[in-house]
Amino acid sequence: MKRYEALADEVAASIRAGVLRPGDRLPSVRQTSQGRQVSPSTVFQAYYLLEARGLIRARPKSGYYVTQGPLALPPEVENPSHPSGEAATLDVSERVFEILQSTMQRDVVPLGSAFPSPLLFPLRRLAKSMASSVQVLDPRAFLDDLTPGNAALRRQIALRYRADGIQVSPDEIVVTNGAMEALSLSLLTVSRPGDAVIIESPCFYAALQSIERNGLRAIEVPTHPRDGIELAALERAILAHHPAACWLMTSFQNPLGSRMPDAKKRELVALLAQHGIPLIEDDVYAELYFGDERPAPAKAYDQNGLVMHCGSFSKSLAPGYRVGWVAPGRYFRELARHKLTTSITTSAPAQAALAAYLEHGGYERHLRQLRRTLKEQQEAFVEAVARHFPAGTRATRPTGGYFVWIELDERVDALSLHSEALKHGISIAPGPIFSASRGFRHCIRLNYGHAFDAKVETAVARLGQLVAASLA
Amino acid sequence: MKRYEALADEVAASIRAGVLRPGDRLPSVRQTSQGRQVSPSTVFQAYYLLEARGLIRARPKSGYYVTQGPLALPPEVENPSHPSGEAATLDVSERVFEILQSTMQRDVVPLGSAFPSPLLFPLRRLAKSMASSVQVLDPRAFLDDLTPGNAALRRQIALRYRADGIQVSPDEIVVTNGAMEALSLSLLTVSRPGDAVIIESPCFYAALQSIERNGLRAIEVPTHPRDGIELAALERAILAHHPAACWLMTSFQNPLGSRMPDAKKRELVALLAQHGIPLIEDDVYAELYFGDERPAPAKAYDQNGLVMHCGSFSKSLAPGYRVGWVAPGRYFRELARHKLTTSITTSAPAQAALAAYLEHGGYERHLRQLRRTLKEQQEAFVEAVARHFPAGTRATRPTGGYFVWIELDERVDALSLHSEALKHGISIAPGPIFSASRGFRHCIRLNYGHAFDAKVETAVARLGQLVAASLA
Repeated sequence: MKRYEALADEVAASIRAGVLRPGDRLPSVRQTSQGRQVSPSTVFQAYYLLEARGLIRARPKSGYYVTQGPLALPPEVENPSHPSGEAATLDVSERVFEILQSTMQRDVVPLGSAFPSPLLFPLRRLAKSMASSVQVLDPRAFLDDLTPGNAALRRQIALRYRADGIQVSPDEIVVTNGAMEALSLSLLTVSRPGDAVIIESPCFYAALQSIERNGLRAIEVPTHPRDGIELAALERAILAHHPAACWLMTSFQNPLGSRMPDAKKRELVALLAQHGIPLIEDDVYAELYFGDERPAPAKAYDQNGLVMHCGSFSKSLAPGYRVGWVAPGRYFRELARHKLTTSITTSAPAQAALAAYLEHGGYERHLRQLRRTLKEQQEAFVEAVARHFPAGTRATRPTGGYFVWIELDERVDALSLHSEALKHGISIAPGPIFSASRGFRHCIRLNYGHAFDAKVETAVARLGQLVAASLA
Repeated sequence: MKRYEALADEVAASIRAGVLRPGDRLPSVRQTSQGRQVSPSTVFQAYYLLEARGLIRARPKSGYYVTQGPLALPPEVENPSHPSGEAATLDVSERVFEILQSTMQRDVVPLGSAFPSPLLFPLRRLAKSMASSVQVLDPRAFLDDLTPGNAALRRQIALRYRADGIQVSPDEIVVTNGAMEALSLSLLTVSRPGDAVIIESPCFYAALQSIERNGLRAIEVPTHPRDGIELAALERAILAHHPAACWLMTSFQNPLGSRMPDAKKRELVALLAQHGIPLIEDDVYAELYFGDERPAPAKAYDQNGLVMHCGSFSKSLAPGYRVGWVAPGRYFRELARHKLTTSITTSAPAQAALAAYLEHGGYERHLRQLRRTLKEQQEAFVEAVARHFPAGTRATRPTGGYFVWIELDERVDALSLHSEALKHGISIAPGPIFSASRGFRHCIRLNYGHAFDAKVETAVARLGQLVAASLA
């Protein structure tokens, strides 16, 4: 964290704690500069940042004043979803791909993006790990590591499981081209065309696309914005549809941000075991928790090898390296074969670099910083939503990750809002792309994984205006 | 090439040209050392290599003598295959995977391996390209390059197409996790479960596995060991089975080593265009030609965007990096979407390293050396087969790549031979794994992509003994 950011955070903390109250005047730039022994420009930057967050306001020739008191957030999204429950054969439209495409343009404020800012990651340090590790890579290792992946990396992944009290050995792990391949292979392994697959409602659109590609039927099950899929509804869906698998995100679900409590995860695993149904557990945001410890995955309670636990370094360490993994339990053998016959193995240099980094690179230190940053960005972002969006707006309260799910007034059409926002250089992720039945028409997913600066603040304000305008 | 290897090659050339004849005594080590101004140990190494190749023999206290005259090869495999032609639903057995597994053990002489020796590649130079390119990688590039891949790399690939007179723009290329993913995505894009797909007989086993995974039917078409698939038979198969695609290797086919002549490729493309059938062209060995120029792919004759041309750097430059590509013609859009929803994109550091290497690294120089080495290893290897295998053995004469296909006496069972050979620490690739109908029971594919040294010579001799024993 830079010096001015630290200073800004400190002031923000004083405001939130009520030590500084609305209307209070902040010490002048010169006073603060002298008192804190930092340069005036550092203080300016800090105040600028606080202004961008809406916590203070400059009055010309007078100084900076606190604008508001403790954290003001929009009301929380409270109710679980109510999908139809019918088995759906999907038709992922052109529109979904166009929306994804639009979020990748460099000149757009990427509130619709699926990715956090690449600036959050220790890419220089990783590049060093890569530079040194590829120089000493034994050429024969390319063959030794075929399919399951780099042995040192699998060992590091297994060690992280062990630290959480989960028994997964290196030999039970397949390294993949990111979690996306881990999920695709898992689905391929446990389903056959025509099968039903249970998903959350709303759910990660890539699950919908995978289900469509494989000729499967998506069964949407009600999901609570705080604690995830509703188990009673899940059981009814199992009895009605005899699914081949469940594909769920148990911690910091995309797009809701919901986190299943430990006890609920345990119940989930027991329920699935009772029916012999494999769980494809997409756990790519697990490292991005804001609380005291990493949430245990459902895999922690798996005694039957039915949980296929999919993880990734893309969201926590190395975007673009495309290194993820799956611990597929009893499906290891078949899944490894699908990997061999679809992409053979995962890029060796990327694996070696990550193995070296995990051994020596300060991953834990990086993660602590990353979590703190995301938590702060969430606060600033959601406060901005509260300030700029009309009454009737609700937001989720994720305790990790970098997405917030916003319920707008029911009259707002998120797809139209998306088109309008794009004209103003802002991308959003409209609700219908997260649903097989194209529900959630008045919902949007916003990404707070980028530094909350004046540009983002302005974009949130503009979005709020567009929402208000569509209600007028 | 090392000095002793150059010296050995020179002597071998004299033997092949008949300048040195069987029974001739070679100059002594001392004479040669002085005459050529190389160390005695260099001459010893050269003579040792020649001895290993069976070209000379040491007589105690007398010196080295030429053992044989011009190149003696086994008779050529002459006849095209005769598969049943019936549509087959596949069942890739345990055995195939076990065989693949066995070829990957480090202590086995890898005559059954699908990979050339990793020592043939400029891995240090590549590591340098990677070290320098990842240090300057713009973090945002990870997002810019999503799915189709690194723009600089796609440009380099397009330049290589252009050098061959083929018009493929960077925007028509998708970078993939090796050719295997390119092929998988191509098949996924153009077929639906239940469709028929035409393959060569014998064919690359991964094609069989992909076809099985996707619930497709494999139609095997007769294929000539020199010039590839028989077009008349292909047309009959098209009319009988209305296939969704053809999946062919047009140059240095695996396992036969066959190369379709240019005119035949042109006819092939015209025939498929007439029936509107896409060609999945697996062209991963194109760079490994022994002649004067790279064979044009069928893609060169494609005027309808029906050819999905799949290439790779794994066999010519960077094993283990897992970087390949596909130029999918009219299927670009759909294929790119399948890539996005199965593995999102290809590892960024590997792509950046290859782009940097292709711009500055001396790829052409490396390729010239690689081709020369493989050609020499082929000669030495096939000569050894001629020396050590019983009469009745035939071999193909590939003009590129690193596989030779051996037809044994019809009484030999290649699967039993495989098991026997493994007991002696030698892997081979038995014929039946290259056939949906489990044909080619008396055939084997051998890999000459490793240095022809005493260990390989001994392995070939032992294999020859095992074949002879199985006939006794």
